[in-house]
This record gives sequence, C-alpha cells and structure tokens, in this order.
Amino acid sequence: MKELNYIRVVLIEPTHPGNIGATARAMANMGASNLVLVNPLSFPSPIANARAAGADDILSNAKVCVSLDDALSDCRLVIGTTARDRSIQWPVLEPREAMGQAFSASQASPVAICFGRESRGMTNDELERCQSLVRIPVEESFSSLNLGSAVMVLLYELRRHALGSDGVQPEQSDEQRANSEAMRQFYEHLFSVLERIEFSDGRSTKLHRKLTRLFNRAEPYEQELNMLRGILTAIERKSITKK
Amino acid sequence: MKELNYIRVVLIEPTHPGNIGATARAMANMGASNLVLVNPLSFPSPIANARAAGADDILSNAKVCVSLDDALSDCRLVIGTTARDRSIQWPVLEPREAMGQAFSASQASPVAICFGRESRGMTNDELERCQSLVRIPVEESFSSLNLGSAVMVLLYELRRHALGSDGVQPEQSDEQRANSEAMRQFYEHLFSVLERIEFSDGRSTKLHRKLTRLFNRAEPYEQELNMLRGILTAIERKSITKK
Repeated sequence: MKELNYIRVVLIEPTHPGNIGATARAMANMGASNLVLVNPLSFPSPIANARAAGADDILSNAKVCVSLDDALSDCRLVIGTTARDRSIQWPVLEPREAMGQAFSASQASPVAICFGRESRGMTNDELERCQSLVRIPVEESFSSLNLGSAVMVLLYELRRHALGSDGVQPEQSDEQRANSEAMRQFYEHLFSVLERIEFSDGRSTKLHRKLTRLFNRAEPYEQELNMLRGILTAIERKSITKK
Repeated sequence: MKELNYIRVVLIEPTHPGNIGATARAMANMGASNLVLVNPLSFPSPIANARAAGADDILSNAKVCVSLDDALSDCRLVIGTTARDRSIQWPVLEPREAMGQAFSASQASPVAICFGRESRGMTNDELERCQSLVRIPVEESFSSLNLGSAVMVLLYELRRHALGSDGVQPEQSDEQRANSEAMRQFYEHLFSVLERIEFSDGRSTKLHRKLTRLFNRAEPYEQELNMLRGILTAIERKSITKK
C-alpha cells in the first residue's frame, strides 16, 4: 500500500533464511515492500523463497548492505526492537505507540524498523543508532519471539495506523488523525480552560499528564479535535459573558 | 498468565507440524496455554517441538480431538477466523474488537479461538458453529497469512486486553476500565453540560454519536472518568455562579 512506501524493514545479520522468507511474507500481507538485509548469513536462498509463499518480489528487490550505517543512511527516523527494558536513557515504547510514530514520520521521509539477530537481538551500539525503541509485550518467562512473528506484529500495528486505528478505512476519505502540533495546541487550550474554570492552578503537571495520556490514547481525528476545540471555546465564552 | 486461563486455541486439521510448533511458541510468548488440535495430520512431531523453541509443555498438554464439536463442547463463546469478508449474516470483526469480546467472555468461562486449515481455512459448517468471526486486515492481493503469524496477531491483541489496552500493566493495580453504566452516566453528564453552555440543543444526536465514538475509543479507566466528571462539575459550577 502506498501509505507504507517509506517504511523500510531492516534485518540485522539474520541467521536463518526461513526467517527472511517469513519476513517477506508478513510484509506482503501488511502492504510493506522495502526489505533491507545487513550481512545475512545465507541469501539468496531457496529456503527464504519457500517461506515467502509467493512474496518473491520483495526478496528479489531486497537490498543487501554490509553495515547498518549503509542501511540507515537516508532515514529520518530509526526504530529499534528490543526484547527487554533497557537501562539506557530513552524510553521503550509499546508497539502501537511506536508504530504510530513510525507511520507519521514515514509520510515525509524514510523510516527504518530494525530487527536484531535471532540469537541476541541488537547490540548496544546498534540500539544507539535508534531514536526510539519498541518492545512487544511478552511473558517474561518466555520472551524469545520468532523473528517473522515480531515483524508481523509490528507491521500489523503499522497497517492499523495506515488504515486508521480501527483497522478499517476511515468513514470519510478526508478524515485524518490530528498531527502532533494540533494536539499540542489542543492541550494548551484545554489546560488554559481548566485554569479559567478553577479546576486547576496552571501548575498541575500530574493532571496534565493524565489528560494527555487519555486523549493520546483516543488518537483523535482532525474533525474530532475541532469539535473539542469548539467545546472549549463555548466554555470560555460562557465564563466570560456571565462575569 | 492467569487472565488467559480460559482461552483455548483450536487448530482445525493443521497440515504442517511446524505450524503447530509455531502456535505453541506464540502462545507461550503471549501467556496462553490451552492448545486443542482437531485431526492434526502429524502430531506429535519433532518438527513441532523444534519450532516450539521451548514451549514443549504446551505441546505435551495439547488435547487432540476427532471433531470440532469435541473441541468446543463446553465453550461459552466460539470465535472463528476468516481470510475474507463472508456473505453470511453475522459481522466480521477486526482483531482488537474480537479479542476484547473474547477476553471479557473468558473471565467467566471457556472461549475458543478457531483457526482453519492452511490451504482453505474453515468450512462454512465450521463457521456456523461460531458466534463471531474475526479477520486480520491484510492486503487483498496477498491475503494468505502464515498460520503461526495469524495466531500471534490475535494473541497479541488478546494480551493487550489482558494487560490493559496500552499493552502495559496499568499504573496502579486497582485501575480498571470504566464499565458501560459508568460510561452511560458520563455521557449523560457531558451532554447536559454541552446544552448548558449552549454548545448543543439537547437533540444533537450526530454530535452525541461523534463524542461517544471518541471517548469509547479511549476506553477510559475509572479514575480517568472521575477526573472528567470533576471537570464537567467545575464547568457547571462556573456557569451557575456567574449567572
């Protein structure tokens, strides 16, 4: 699907060609097409083609790189995958949020989603190349995900964002999720109204965080945000005219 | 995880033992444990164990049945999977909604999620045994999902519901989603406030539907709903005292 044209799936040193094929199949299912392989142990491989189950185009168009730097050179956003919470500074996102970020950024320029080796994932050096990390929530006692399955879960979330988060085409073709700048303006408006009606004192960071968490979860469409802004304006008007 | 104790993964006539193993692995990743196989072509199988990557308990505890009826006998809810929109009467849900239904029902009694044969899915007779159907949104031109990947996507959504829809444990252990009665009271309060501030005339069903759609999508926690109710009360107070 054209909405995922700028999405690049990067497998770092995959060992099993079957996993490369499974990745290509998952990509074809979900509408992504750009596969990049960094130092694959065995590629091309008939095992990869067998597991691709018809997604041969993706395999034959796959780009093979000798370093991760090559794979990422023109990417605006690089997302890394990790099986565990890391001690490093940046946050580990859950798949839905991370793929929302990936989808938004990919509307303008290339975005890479990187998957590490089957045996030991991504190295710390590789993770430091990433702006965001994503972790699929698994049982701690059984956290080893199949590589193809991990690709599938993330691309499924990405596709949901491309279709609208209900997983279906939006009701109207011109309906779009509000972007982060529109959300920022909405929150500014909301917090100022809460202060005006004396619900908050303007320094209520905990309240602000709770409201942000709630409305971010709803991922409002532009039209919905306009409706909410209209309600805020009506509240303001009321508390002025009745003074 | 105990929240998924009543979830049963049912594979109908799986042909490839590797897919049985991949299913067991995905179940172990996502915290489900009850696997039922209806007439598997080859089981037990060392190929299944190899692909299970350590989830041998699930394989050795798997129940083998000779008919789908046996597999479903004590289930309260049966969900079927389909690769395409069906012409039959009942609706085809997207994964998040279907797994929400499955998760809720499974808190009280067994719920089966059924997956068809690799070659041709579930028969119409088998689909008629289901109360709900679910379809993973795939590209129409490449709709053939790997069986293990389909299991993974649905169990991932199920686990998200078990963890709370952010895919992480809620901040506080006593945090619960607001129930439908609490939501109904919130909407009543919200609509009455919109009328009071003259944003709506009380008969704005389209506006009400839009707001319902937005807040339902956020699936508020009880505490969040209390916060919103508090804001509504503050607006009411403001528009009374300033009269």
